[in-house]
Amino acid sequence: IVNLSSCFLQGILERLDAGEIVIGDGGFVFALEKRGYVKAGPWTPEATVEHPEAVRQLHREFLRAGSNVLQTFTFYASEDKLENRGNYVAEKISCNKVNEAACDIAREVANEGDALVAGGVSQTPSYLSCKDKTEVKAAFKKQLEVFMKKNVDFLIAEYFEHVEEAVWAVEVLKESGKPVAATMCIGPEGDMHGVPPGQCAVQLVKAGASIVGVNCHFDPETSIETVRLMKEGLQAAKLKAHLMCQPLAFHTPDCGKQGFIDLPEFPFGLEPRIATRWDIQKYARKAYDLGIRFIGGCCGFEPYHIRAIAEELAPERGFLPEASEKHGTWGDNLSMHTKPWVRARARKEYWENLKPASGRPYCPCMSKPDGWGVTKGAKELMQQKEATTEQQLKELFQKKKF
Amino acid sequence: IVNLSSCFLQGILERLDAGEIVIGDGGFVFALEKRGYVKAGPWTPEATVEHPEAVRQLHREFLRAGSNVLQTFTFYASEDKLENRGNYVAEKISCNKVNEAACDIAREVANEGDALVAGGVSQTPSYLSCKDKTEVKAAFKKQLEVFMKKNVDFLIAEYFEHVEEAVWAVEVLKESGKPVAATMCIGPEGDMHGVPPGQCAVQLVKAGASIVGVNCHFDPETSIETVRLMKEGLQAAKLKAHLMCQPLAFHTPDCGKQGFIDLPEFPFGLEPRIATRWDIQKYARKAYDLGIRFIGGCCGFEPYHIRAIAEELAPERGFLPEASEKHGTWGDNLSMHTKPWVRARARKEYWENLKPASGRPYCPCMSKPDGWGVTKGAKELMQQKEATTEQQLKELFQKKKF
Amino acid sequence: IVNLSSCFLQGILERLDAGEIVIGDGGFVFALEKRGYVKAGPWTPEATVEHPEAVRQLHREFLRAGSNVLQTFTFYASEDKLENRGNYVAEKISCNKVNEAACDIAREVANEGDALVAGGVSQTPSYLSCKDKTEVKAAFKKQLEVFMKKNVDFLIAEYFEHVEEAVWAVEVLKESGKPVAATMCIGPEGDMHGVPPGQCAVQLVKAGASIVGVNCHFDPETSIETVRLMKEGLQAAKLKAHLMCQPLAFHTPDCGKQGFIDLPEFPFGLEPRIATRWDIQKYARKAYDLGIRFIGGCCGFEPYHIRAIAEELAPERGFLPEASEKHGTWGDNLSMHTKPWVRARARKEYWENLKPASGRPYCPCMSKPDGWGVTKGAKELMQQKEATTEQQLKELFQKKKF
Amino acid sequence: IVNLSSCFLQGILERLDAGEIVIGDGGFVFALEKRGYVKAGPWTPEATVEHPEAVRQLHREFLRAGSNVLQTFTFYASEDKLENRGNYVAEKISCNKVNEAACDIAREVANEGDALVAGGVSQTPSYLSCKDKTEVKAAFKKQLEVFMKKNVDFLIAEYFEHVEEAVWAVEVLKESGKPVAATMCIGPEGDMHGVPPGQCAVQLVKAGASIVGVNCHFDPETSIETVRLMKEGLQAAKLKAHLMCQPLAFHTPDCGKQGFIDLPEFPFGLEPRIATRWDIQKYARKAYDLGIRFIGGCCGFEPYHIRAIAEELAPERGFLPEASEKHGTWGDNLSMHTKPWVRARARKEYWENLKPASGRPYCPCMSKPDGWGVTKGAKELMQQKEATTEQQLKELFQKKKF
Repeated sequence: IVNLSSCFLQGILERLDAGEIVIGDGGFVFALEKRGYVKAGPWTPEATVEHPEAVRQLHREFLRAGSNVLQTFTFYASEDKLENRGNYVAEKISCNKVNEAACDIAREVANEGDALVAGGVSQTPSYLSCKDKTEVKAAFKKQLEVFMKKNVDFLIAEYFEHVEEAVWAVEVLKESGKPVAATMCIGPEGDMHGVPPGQCAVQLVKAGASIVGVNCHFDPETSIETVRLMKEGLQAAKLKAHLMCQPLAFHTPDCGKQGFIDLPEFPFGLEPRIATRWDIQKYARKAYDLGIRFIGGCCGFEPYHIRAIAEELAPERGFLPEASEKHGTWGDNLSMHTKPWVRARARKEYWENLKPASGRPYCPCMSKPDGWGVTKGAKELMQQKEATTEQQLKELFQKKKF
Repeated sequence: IVNLSSCFLQGILERLDAGEIVIGDGGFVFALEKRGYVKAGPWTPEATVEHPEAVRQLHREFLRAGSNVLQTFTFYASEDKLENRGNYVAEKISCNKVNEAACDIAREVANEGDALVAGGVSQTPSYLSCKDKTEVKAAFKKQLEVFMKKNVDFLIAEYFEHVEEAVWAVEVLKESGKPVAATMCIGPEGDMHGVPPGQCAVQLVKAGASIVGVNCHFDPETSIETVRLMKEGLQAAKLKAHLMCQPLAFHTPDCGKQGFIDLPEFPFGLEPRIATRWDIQKYARKAYDLGIRFIGGCCGFEPYHIRAIAEELAPERGFLPEASEKHGTWGDNLSMHTKPWVRARARKEYWENLKPASGRPYCPCMSKPDGWGVTKGAKELMQQKEATTEQQLKELFQKKKF
Repeated sequence: IVNLSSCFLQGILERLDAGEIVIGDGGFVFALEKRGYVKAGPWTPEATVEHPEAVRQLHREFLRAGSNVLQTFTFYASEDKLENRGNYVAEKISCNKVNEAACDIAREVANEGDALVAGGVSQTPSYLSCKDKTEVKAAFKKQLEVFMKKNVDFLIAEYFEHVEEAVWAVEVLKESGKPVAATMCIGPEGDMHGVPPGQCAVQLVKAGASIVGVNCHFDPETSIETVRLMKEGLQAAKLKAHLMCQPLAFHTPDCGKQGFIDLPEFPFGLEPRIATRWDIQKYARKAYDLGIRFIGGCCGFEPYHIRAIAEELAPERGFLPEASEKHGTWGDNLSMHTKPWVRARARKEYWENLKPASGRPYCPCMSKPDGWGVTKGAKELMQQKEATTEQQLKELFQKKKF
Repeated sequence: IVNLSSCFLQGILERLDAGEIVIGDGGFVFALEKRGYVKAGPWTPEATVEHPEAVRQLHREFLRAGSNVLQTFTFYASEDKLENRGNYVAEKISCNKVNEAACDIAREVANEGDALVAGGVSQTPSYLSCKDKTEVKAAFKKQLEVFMKKNVDFLIAEYFEHVEEAVWAVEVLKESGKPVAATMCIGPEGDMHGVPPGQCAVQLVKAGASIVGVNCHFDPETSIETVRLMKEGLQAAKLKAHLMCQPLAFHTPDCGKQGFIDLPEFPFGLEPRIATRWDIQKYARKAYDLGIRFIGGCCGFEPYHIRAIAEELAPERGFLPEASEKHGTWGDNLSMHTKPWVRARARKEYWENLKPASGRPYCPCMSKPDGWGVTKGAKELMQQKEATTEQQLKELFQKKKF
């Protein structure tokens, strides 16, 4: 497979440096779980080998929706993670095979349009079970070798709860000479050791990341707030970096420090929290206004959510994505509906102001998170307690080898 | 393409007569709209020609999830409808081409597993604009010719708001000699002319339908209630037929007679209403308990919803669908999650009793439907008014040629 | 105490016959429970003897709010009920004493304004424990003797779940020669034996009631619907009677046949359901529009709710109640608030359109009723089951002597 | 009227110094507005002269419910406020007359039980319209003269949004030689000039207050959090004072800095936010656990809410209030209800765990506050904007003479 992007396209940093908006893609593990190809719990990407056609189709939908970056489906594809889940993954699918197939599929689809391929690594069981720096870095190196062999366009270290591990990942990836983006799955309260977002950003940039931000764990609004704190941290430290945001497409105003993992609805009852396309348009606008230029999504983001980003920012970018052919902005295709009162919904004001009902009369609108996460309001009272619990939990992890 | 089903598989009636559970598929127009291939508003299926790979992948996902019936993606594919939307559909895609491609794709995927292909027709603009019986029947005939040429396994007349038109459709389809199923998109209040569900069922069976029920417009609970009324109607008339149910995967307890079309959230703000997999398991059980044996879904049903039907009824059927490899029943793969409190969710009681929050503090749980639909409680007061409005609306349709 | 009303005022039937609007009063047991004078559970009115000042003050507040009828606080004051609760009521307070004190206090306050005194009886434990007609009637007779001695202006038989007992009460009261009103605590599904509202109304009028309707158990909207069914029943039977409505001031859209008793919130968690004054204005208007002319309230109705009736119907009546001195219609006194944005709320449109939030993020908007009541949607399925349960429950009552 | 308390009872400080729990009373303006004696908007207490029986009855209910302190009904009874509302108050009711009557009524009822009388002052229009210190202090002095003449037991400066004015009030009251309590109507974000709660407490104690805390504007949970911040401020400053809390009986988790005034429901749509008795028991326990010993209520607190405080803390105090005769703790009188399933609610676990529904399907659970208040989550973004708006608003006040 030829890497078209290296011939014709600008690289990620050239684009961002030029002020372009770069649109990321959506969440593979959640989308493919619903399509029947990924297990919730392990969340590993063996589908790249088992069902490449399903992975390819999802990449293609994101591309059509406007994604400029196709991330290799290599989430949780470090060797230690795949081994850990060994009895669930077909024995013969090696770590390398999963990662290589992921690169091939992403490149194949990227060549169908204007998109870069990003090789991705994420947090490892090795770190959580307190393996040392050398061992953790080895896991990233093994994945990086594949990314180099397959010549991805740039690299993303994403979904890190601990900035220490994220820094190690960036250090490894940076050795490749390719541009590195790094996003943590944290909220405004910072990482699991209590490092605030601003400081996380500073450490990541110092380690070599050219693009920093957050992904997963929180809704768009909370994630933008976290990136804002990162931006302030960088400004205070007089560091420069591009900003990136790939939040959930779930509403999580009631989350504690751990994000949506602690919500009782995670991961099989999140439906009523799914963002509408209009929620995502608001997110895209807010992200843009804060200066974020790499704007995408994570769990819950389906192709139509990515399209919503592309449509909201079409005035700035000057074009619509391919999939907008099938979507009038702000619902204007509804003008062709058979019922007059539905035709009356074909306008921006209608959708912008709609407060959607859940149709669930016996359900509350907010949940009490469990786990060691805490509701925002109670954070001070819980801080000491948390510290203890987290330590205890780490010990548990060490024993159980998760 | 060879029709494997005619060689190896039992037909739809043989299966139902033998007491088998037949699992339908989910909603194509909604799923493909979110994937970027269908326009909301017209809801026409030109994707069968434009993007067969996307249609094929969705069929495949439903098959893996447990569908025993793959419906050709021919919703709203009557010539009058496609023409009506002419300026939106690429000029050169003829009605026949759309219908033929739909048959080919469905057959190709059906051959990958144990599934029948059903050719489907739905209500026509001709009827709504008061064309006569001959003209309306001509539209159905044109589609039927394709279904016969492509040798589908049986036929479905679905999504009819008026039993009169549904009867015409059944009469046309019946001439083919193939088994005919017929479902209306109505609730317990009956069709748009006020014909109650029991009477609708009687008329459809008398016209030649072997399977009757409902699809679309209402949530699973309401739809089952409607099928119950149909069952009673058939019993009272001493008629026999198989029962079928393909509801929405959206909660709609607040709908009026018109169903979800009248909800202010239709079609772009329905996210908080999406059913969880556990909601669907409850639906499958209730449907089974009422004696429904053709159990599927309509708009909002994604592959994981169909899998939920197959998993709920696995004890009765004796097997799980292919996609269950990636899904422990009742969340039991969560026992492999990294967080202990998430592992604690790997059990039936947890998910069965969860009342999911919407994470939307400024939103209500119920909406006031608009259109000419009415909330259930106010139905008597509105009956006279409705009659008037419907008449006026029909006149409007006649003038505007919708 | 002199009965001014018999000298100066028109009686209840003269007023209603003349087309006047008669405003009832609110709920004594709930209001006095919150003020510390009545026990929830027994709900008996011994406060008339123990704390006459508290009863007097509440009567006075309703009078000032616009009540034209002061009901004697004799709810559940039949001898069998008071005895049943004997160990809770101070031993020496006889049934007669409670009823006499109630009459005296009501008359004293009625004389302060334009109000009639109505002696009230309600359902008895004797009936529920299957005592015979003679015994049940004896309980009503005993109370009636007090009402005759104290010369009340008319009589109300209220809060009956079984029309049979209500008819017996009317028959007793009718012997007095005074006008009799009769209200049942039922919803649109009818009485506990399944007698529909229309038929209940017919039986009550045939037994001698000049005014019929409902009180308690359901919210204003549901209660009006029930009175509408009563009205239709009377029309069909070519009977004439005045209509009366005294609903709860609690929202109960989720109630089953038994009303709010079955809600899990009854009686100590009903706060979020309390009607606003604007809800009550809507109720007053709807009641008036249906032709109801005796419009009051029951449990949950505080003086400001009664004032809301009087203010809504002030255009028809030509005057405001005394307490409106302290209440600008539609919040117009807010124009004197210190904050400009609160002053902006001094208008009808604001309050009419407000959708009040509950400030309870972990609470649902609807409850699942328990008891033998059923949610509206499930009524058919439950009918047979209910019949059984009700019979069983009756047997329970017989044994336990409730 | 003889002041029994000065003969027989311990003063407020002796009680608190001895570690006693002192229970305050509830909210007069809201309760009497609903009873028909006070205008919302002006919120002035002319009812002490116009309808003393109504004021007396409410005092008596609080006394029976367990109040140890009866506050004179002199809220907003400074001369400048009464004059400001001149055209609404009957011309001839002077400021002195209102204040004197308030003292007499409170003393009369206090003598019926174990209660102290507290003379109360609150914030003045003079301060808000930027009158100087001398003028503002003159308003407090005028009221203090009445309190001294009537020999109240101690003094409360309450409902201050600006600590500067509260300090002035304390300085005036302190001159009397009587104990002074001071409460501000602020939340955790501090006073309207941004002075944090800890610092407000320090200033008030330095000015001479022996008891400090908060009243009004926020729900119990938020108010306790504010008092906790005050406690920390005092500890840091090595100052000692008793703590006091008199919050709303409305749930206000969605309030901004200004408290419930900014909620769209204020003041006529707050019903769904009313606290249950069980909410108040939780509040009493939490307040006690934080070391607060003067525990009462403000707007929304009805007698049964005060009783809930007394019942929750009965184990610590060793006795129940008089009104508990009519209230089994944790609903145990329900064991006498006629329906078995209601009898099953006669237990602590039931009520403690109930999540009450609102019965309002079209309403959200949270509101967006208006005014210059801000939602908690957005506070940083709004701080600069607020400063400006507050300044502008002050200018508005100066011009408009509010």
